Amino acid sequence: MENSLGRLFTITSFGESHGRCVGIIIDGCPAGLPITEQDIQRDIDRRKPGIVMAATRRTEEDNVEILSGIFNGITTGAPICLLIWNRDIDSSEYEKMRFLPRPGHADYTAFMKYGGFNDFRGGGRFSGRITATLVMAGAVAKKLLNLIGIEVLAHTVDIGGIKAEPKEFEEIRKNVANNSVRCADLKAAQAMSRVIEKVKEEGDSIGGIVEGIALNMPIGLGEPFFDTLDGELAKALFAIPAVKGVEFGSGFSVAGKRGSENNDPFIIKNGKIVTATNNAGGILGGISNGMPIVVRVAIKPTSSIAKSQETVNIKNMESASPAVKGRHDVCIVPRAVAVVESMMAVTLCDFAMRAGLLPRVIK
Amino acid sequence: MENSLGRLFTITSFGESHGRCVGIIIDGCPAGLPITEQDIQRDIDRRKPGIVMAATRRTEEDNVEILSGIFNGITTGAPICLLIWNRDIDSSEYEKMRFLPRPGHADYTAFMKYGGFNDFRGGGRFSGRITATLVMAGAVAKKLLNLIGIEVLAHTVDIGGIKAEPKEFEEIRKNVANNSVRCADLKAAQAMSRVIEKVKEEGDSIGGIVEGIALNMPIGLGEPFFDTLDGELAKALFAIPAVKGVEFGSGFSVAGKRGSENNDPFIIKNGKIVTATNNAGGILGGISNGMPIVVRVAIKPTSSIAKSQETVNIKNMESASPAVKGRHDVCIVPRAVAVVESMMAVTLCDFAMRAGLLPRVIK
Amino acid sequence: MENSLGRLFTITSFGESHGRCVGIIIDGCPAGLPITEQDIQRDIDRRKPGIVMAATRRTEEDNVEILSGIFNGITTGAPICLLIWNRDIDSSEYEKMRFLPRPGHADYTAFMKYGGFNDFRGGGRFSGRITATLVMAGAVAKKLLNLIGIEVLAHTVDIGGIKAEPKEFEEIRKNVANNSVRCADLKAAQAMSRVIEKVKEEGDSIGGIVEGIALNMPIGLGEPFFDTLDGELAKALFAIPAVKGVEFGSGFSVAGKRGSENNDPFIIKNGKIVTATNNAGGILGGISNGMPIVVRVAIKPTSSIAKSQETVNIKNMESASPAVKGRHDVCIVPRAVAVVESMMAVTLCDFAMRAGLLPRVIK
Amino acid sequence: MENSLGRLFTITSFGESHGRCVGIIIDGCPAGLPITEQDIQRDIDRRKPGIVMAATRRTEEDNVEILSGIFNGITTGAPICLLIWNRDIDSSEYEKMRFLPRPGHADYTAFMKYGGFNDFRGGGRFSGRITATLVMAGAVAKKLLNLIGIEVLAHTVDIGGIKAEPKEFEEIRKNVANNSVRCADLKAAQAMSRVIEKVKEEGDSIGGIVEGIALNMPIGLGEPFFDTLDGELAKALFAIPAVKGVEFGSGFSVAGKRGSENNDPFIIKNGKIVTATNNAGGILGGISNGMPIVVRVAIKPTSSIAKSQETVNIKNMESASPAVKGRHDVCIVPRAVAVVESMMAVTLCDFAMRAGLLPRVIK
Repeated sequence: MENSLGRLFTITSFGESHGRCVGIIIDGCPAGLPITEQDIQRDIDRRKPGIVMAATRRTEEDNVEILSGIFNGITTGAPICLLIWNRDIDSSEYEKMRFLPRPGHADYTAFMKYGGFNDFRGGGRFSGRITATLVMAGAVAKKLLNLIGIEVLAHTVDIGGIKAEPKEFEEIRKNVANNSVRCADLKAAQAMSRVIEKVKEEGDSIGGIVEGIALNMPIGLGEPFFDTLDGELAKALFAIPAVKGVEFGSGFSVAGKRGSENNDPFIIKNGKIVTATNNAGGILGGISNGMPIVVRVAIKPTSSIAKSQETVNIKNMESASPAVKGRHDVCIVPRAVAVVESMMAVTLCDFAMRAGLLPRVIK
Repeated sequence: MENSLGRLFTITSFGESHGRCVGIIIDGCPAGLPITEQDIQRDIDRRKPGIVMAATRRTEEDNVEILSGIFNGITTGAPICLLIWNRDIDSSEYEKMRFLPRPGHADYTAFMKYGGFNDFRGGGRFSGRITATLVMAGAVAKKLLNLIGIEVLAHTVDIGGIKAEPKEFEEIRKNVANNSVRCADLKAAQAMSRVIEKVKEEGDSIGGIVEGIALNMPIGLGEPFFDTLDGELAKALFAIPAVKGVEFGSGFSVAGKRGSENNDPFIIKNGKIVTATNNAGGILGGISNGMPIVVRVAIKPTSSIAKSQETVNIKNMESASPAVKGRHDVCIVPRAVAVVESMMAVTLCDFAMRAGLLPRVIK
Repeated sequence: MENSLGRLFTITSFGESHGRCVGIIIDGCPAGLPITEQDIQRDIDRRKPGIVMAATRRTEEDNVEILSGIFNGITTGAPICLLIWNRDIDSSEYEKMRFLPRPGHADYTAFMKYGGFNDFRGGGRFSGRITATLVMAGAVAKKLLNLIGIEVLAHTVDIGGIKAEPKEFEEIRKNVANNSVRCADLKAAQAMSRVIEKVKEEGDSIGGIVEGIALNMPIGLGEPFFDTLDGELAKALFAIPAVKGVEFGSGFSVAGKRGSENNDPFIIKNGKIVTATNNAGGILGGISNGMPIVVRVAIKPTSSIAKSQETVNIKNMESASPAVKGRHDVCIVPRAVAVVESMMAVTLCDFAMRAGLLPRVIK
Repeated sequence: MENSLGRLFTITSFGESHGRCVGIIIDGCPAGLPITEQDIQRDIDRRKPGIVMAATRRTEEDNVEILSGIFNGITTGAPICLLIWNRDIDSSEYEKMRFLPRPGHADYTAFMKYGGFNDFRGGGRFSGRITATLVMAGAVAKKLLNLIGIEVLAHTVDIGGIKAEPKEFEEIRKNVANNSVRCADLKAAQAMSRVIEKVKEEGDSIGGIVEGIALNMPIGLGEPFFDTLDGELAKALFAIPAVKGVEFGSGFSVAGKRGSENNDPFIIKNGKIVTATNNAGGILGGISNGMPIVVRVAIKPTSSIAKSQETVNIKNMESASPAVKGRHDVCIVPRAVAVVESMMAVTLCDFAMRAGLLPRVIK
């Protein structure tokens, strides 16, 4: 079950970075939903690196194939298997690095946990490439959420300490696709691009923060005590490699706040109860309150860097400090935007089904 | 299943703040573990407010009773039911507030989700009192972790923006019980106490940050891709009411860091591979790397405050601004320390069982 | 999780035969359902032995108490804890028998599995008394099924080889409560009673078969490929101690049948598609087809008998042949009728929720 | 989750009869197990029809491909994806039959449950072809069980009412592969073959019974109260299309037995406690007692027959009685033998892991 997520809308990820393929099974998707390979391809393409500067040099063709669960372009209620074949693989560098765990990477823990049997090539199951399977699932989830009006969008709010100015949802929606760092503040975006370029020249990498938003939220998603909306979102987001922190609404800034300033007053607007502010990030008591979900996700700098780093040869227990070659992003934050969106969509979809908002058959 | 947590070491919480009792079922606990009501009582007492200043005024007797699963003082392998009867209950205030959701509290979302049938008295299932059930489970989990040498401890690192200086583990262990705010930096502790006193006078509340640590960690806990150690810890911690953020190791500060400074170099120490720094917070690729787990949890100011706040009467849709009476903590951070410890212990215990480190029968 | 059953309507059983109590947690029950202790008591009383002859001599007061999840007589959406305190316990016989496993009983496997730490008194978790927890859950499940018109009823169709004649549903419903063996064929019931009396005189025990029926079934319950309606019903029924076989519709007799006689032709009746016969027992491809569910459950003779039986002392590995004293039913088949009904109701309720037929809030 | 089975050793089935492929994901398989495509192919070939007489006419090439989770011929701890591409597909007959549900088949329930969106071609998810995915999983499970000495074998004990004489395990193991009906009693096997031939001439089909056996069982597999060994085996076996009954040990014959004859006396043999008889079928209280597991599975006659049968056109609600063409087995019992073995192996493997008998890494 460790490679499965969700109770009613369940995804099961498989495949390795340099194996034959990466894929996802979606179980519990309602019957009657029209889906084409193009629908999913579109989201896979959004995950692609936008410009050369921030990009991995690997040419990922990444053509989505539907293997099951969809008949005549419509979901059947059977498990949907979506798959991308791996191509353009050069594992030679990894053979050399097999016993030299990269600092900050899962090489060491994977080796120890799986007794050295793990497929180490390209990071195997611990490669960012696995996030392509999440994006495929997210594409289906977003189509379902669309039926009940929920919109999920994510954007970069910080790279290397350069913070984006807060923007309105419409501006975010419009600007995020217009620049390679997926930032709604176009001025900050330019500064972020420059930082990435500089860091690249140094042979280093850089972290950042992605903010995820869900709009038009119904009230009542989330199943406390343990299956809270925030808890399940956090679990789903921490599955994304490189995530080190998750916060909702005012997040860690609550430490310095008074209740009287952090509590969101209830008011009436257009005949509905809403909150005047959204410090709660749309969640009270683990349940959506109808306001936008706002979650921020801290993404560490890529662990694989060109600079030489200190490590230990697991086999002979000798110190070593090799330079990692391979092809790696200097900053994965822009690519993580599509992945954060996907994990939010998958989780919200599961909760919508648990709340009975999505039928088992779509008519 | 929404009130259950864990795969092999599973806890199921039940009970309400002003109902007959609060309780927990622990399923999957190995047979052969000696446990007495006193063992659990000790942890329950640690959750109690330390001094009048920061305390709820409710007198919680909170006597733990073992209803099942333990025979002659030893676990039997059957589900363990632990229970605390509720006493000293005055629900009269809540009757008056029934249709007036407190800002920042789950009153509104609970009312909407459960169609108004939820037990609203004292917050019902959304009361901090439910955390007593977590602490009972944590007491059992800590006894199990003790068998394999894992130690879990938590401490207050921030209240109202007053930050504790970093301390060594021994000092944390020693100091945390010595002051009412559960802070290892005794100087900061005094300042925190003063802030709480001040906030109390203002009829307001204040937030903070708790840091949880797990020492003597085995390598290999965590089950990626989805059941990562960080993801499951985060989910468990977000179940604690008032938690708005969770971060591991360098956490949100990774946004401004370079890979070369954030990656923890592998070195050899006492013949073992360790990392020179611990920016990873003990987790790489969702798996423990043998270094201490370090997690920080943002806790918002108590939503119930004496100051009057703006809200809406759900029944007649009119604005209202009543003052919440009831008995509430000005700052729940100190009491959350024991709860953070418990959720960490429960989660680590589950992963230790999944990794085969704990037997089904203890000999 | 091993003491939990169900995905959305989940029950968790706890307690031991001679411990403090037996109880059940129901998680996922919709809010808004009126339930009183009397509602549940009624079903608990139906499980009681009808007449002295077939009865255990233990006086079970068995007063149901609601500990949580119900407020003002209505479910709240929170987990429901139902409990019966144990009274009238004499464990002295069991102390003597501790290392002498009763043939046919779980004494031996429980001792081996739990390293001798299991609560052996009265069979502990392996006592028929645990079925009282199932009946409490079943009472709630039946109230929910009632909302969508599903009726579950069970009756004795065989005791000691004496087979009941097939009866119409109305006659079953009417007759089953009228005799101590819960048999709809009153003539057979008398013969069954005589057999039980005879077996009792011999210091022996006797088995039988219970048939469970669900009427007014919606089409579409069951979630293949693995969570089939028949598979989940079978799993739930095998949890009842003493069950050794489960069959649906024509069951084991299919071995000798041709397809042309076993297939149920589809016909139109009152404008609806039904089957002319019901060899399928209401299930095709793991999914309900709208016809009555018909399941038969083989129940072995009580393993505890007065006659002396051959066993081995686990401690000193010497042969022994003690007579079991204690208080035991000669034939548990009549008491199993209420339990079979309960397990069917609980399982159907879970599937009804999975199919979206029951709301999360009942209005 | 409905297409997943198991807690720690979890299988997820996908694919359709006339879709692109059928496949299985195995999650939780320990790292370090050598597996080749040939290992799995061998079991897939055993599922093939043995002789023309009892066979489906479809030429299933059924070449197993490993898509993930195995690296250099050894499991990595990552999810294993095994796949068979579908070939030789002619769906034309099914298009004609789309609205004419075959009596005894899942056509009707699938149509109703999935709103007519189900892939009806070749029965889609309800085809016997899906059992190929179970056999692939079973091949892996059997390799794991082999490490702890457990052997699973199944054989035909009844076809069309012709019962096989009981045979010793060695004879079963030897004879079952030697004849097309997979029966250890070679004389009965001949009679069974004749019956099948006769039924085929009649354009009809015939049912039977398969017995599954597990040898060298450890004591202690099974997790009561609900996750009993018999309950989980039953659930797994009912997932096999056409199964209508499951019984253990003396099974339904317990109805006519006395406790004194059905209870298996404990005796000492070679210094170990065993039972003199095995009426329990190796399971007491839901837990293995170390004796062989013996389970019998009733398999109904194939629902698709050449003879014309009465049905209803779902679209226009008119009666119809078409003859099913397609290619169908007259008797699927012989082919079910490999599937019963597989489901037993998968279930026992999961319980062996839950009991801690299989490590997470095989050395």
